[in-house]
Amino acid sequence: MAYLIPVVIILALIYNSIKVLMEYERGVIFFLGKFQQVKGPGVIIVIPVLQRMMRVNLQTITMDVPTQDVITRDNVSVKVNAVIFFRVVDPQRAMLAVQDYLYSTSQIAQTTLRSVLGQSQLDELLSKREEINVELQRIIDQQTEPWGVKVSVVEVKNVDLKRCCGPSRNRRKPSASAARR
Amino acid sequence: MAYLIPVVIILALIYNSIKVLMEYERGVIFFLGKFQQVKGPGVIIVIPVLQRMMRVNLQTITMDVPTQDVITRDNVSVKVNAVIFFRVVDPQRAMLAVQDYLYSTSQIAQTTLRSVLGQSQLDELLSKREEINVELQRIIDQQTEPWGVKVSVVEVKNVDLKRCCGPSRNRRKPSASAARR
Amino acid sequence: MAYLIPVVIILALIYNSIKVLMEYERGVIFFLGKFQQVKGPGVIIVIPVLQRMMRVNLQTITMDVPTQDVITRDNVSVKVNAVIFFRVVDPQRAMLAVQDYLYSTSQIAQTTLRSVLGQSQLDELLSKREEINVELQRIIDQQTEPWGVKVSVVEVKNVDLKRCCGPSRNRRKPSASAARR
Repeated sequence: MAYLIPVVIILALIYNSIKVLMEYERGVIFFLGKFQQVKGPGVIIVIPVLQRMMRVNLQTITMDVPTQDVITRDNVSVKVNAVIFFRVVDPQRAMLAVQDYLYSTSQIAQTTLRSVLGQSQLDELLSKREEINVELQRIIDQQTEPWGVKVSVVEVKNVDLKRCCGPSRNRRKPSASAARR
Repeated sequence: MAYLIPVVIILALIYNSIKVLMEYERGVIFFLGKFQQVKGPGVIIVIPVLQRMMRVNLQTITMDVPTQDVITRDNVSVKVNAVIFFRVVDPQRAMLAVQDYLYSTSQIAQTTLRSVLGQSQLDELLSKREEINVELQRIIDQQTEPWGVKVSVVEVKNVDLKRCCGPSRNRRKPSASAARR
Repeated sequence: MAYLIPVVIILALIYNSIKVLMEYERGVIFFLGKFQQVKGPGVIIVIPVLQRMMRVNLQTITMDVPTQDVITRDNVSVKVNAVIFFRVVDPQRAMLAVQDYLYSTSQIAQTTLRSVLGQSQLDELLSKREEINVELQRIIDQQTEPWGVKVSVVEVKNVDLKRCCGPSRNRRKPSASAARR
């Protein structure tokens, strides 16, 4: 029965080298560390030891941009959150160019939300939603482009003018109006 | 079977001397302690005893700059945090010139955030975000340059004017409004 | 087999006398206790019994200066911390002139932080950050110079005016606002 042991080991190796990628997944294959190719969906063989595979999901990801405190150009303090739809279009760059493309995209979305809304008037923010969404999408997409991430839609969700604490609002008020004169 | 022992030792040595560097990694090779060269991605041989290798990641790193208490030039106390994107462009200097390039870059980012924002008016901080981000990026990049670290983007995230404690808020108040007139 | 023992001992001695210094390290060599020379990076021989070696790191070190309670010249109590960047430029003096150059540099930084800030007005501390940083760097560097330690940058980080305890805050109040008028 001793001759069975190598057979079992070989079978186990073969089993581990067979990977199934779903229709919406890609495998970035490295051959001895060097990028080799992106393999499509279906069954692929990854040679043990020599090759390594990183799995990338190409499905559109819906990510919540957490609530940001933004002060509009006309000095009104608002709480804004948004939702962003994006997907990986270039698995190679998503794996190679950046350490964590999900976290980085989320950070870019947060900072862009702040900066774009901080340059808008409150009126624009409320009435020109569409234009602001398009602007947000354009800027975020431009920054995530080197990472192979395509941002398809950004939508501002909740624009909240309510302030929790009365005194705090009153405090900012006079100076804001003073600065405007 | 005794003649097998040196063979096993030699095989183990060879196995340990083979290093696989991913596409986005570089190995800084030292020959008997002296810097020898930076080796690219793929398989490299590190001669045991004689050579040593340090692994450097070239991917873009997204790092959170923790919240800093800043007092603007017009004496308003704000809590500010930021996010910084950087990557190693010169593995040699990142390993040789500084003890821990991640920690040092983080510290430089924190202090620059304070000093640049401390020299700005609150109004500038809120309305001229873009210019402040560019200024931050320029100063931080200049300081990390000797370490082979390239800072690509710095983005101020949250500018928080709210104060937790009423009396403390009142204390800072008069001076702030006085300075603005 | 007995004649092998001295051979093994001699081999062990030779092995122990070979030291590898990394590119950014220097070895300070003492011959029978007397300073002999500083040896560069790479392989060096240290004669057992007769010679001794101390290893010095020349990389830039980023060190946190812990939070100090400082009372400014206009009697405002603040909590201040800082970060200091330095490196050894003269390994000989760093080893000979001072018992622990890291600890000593840290202590010098703390006391200088207190004394410089204690001689500043609160307004200067908040608005003239750059000048205070330069002043701190100059004084600390001057004091660490005999130890072969070069201080490149000192940056004040957090200047905290908040006080935990109400009575203490009220006590300090009048003087602060009086000084500002």
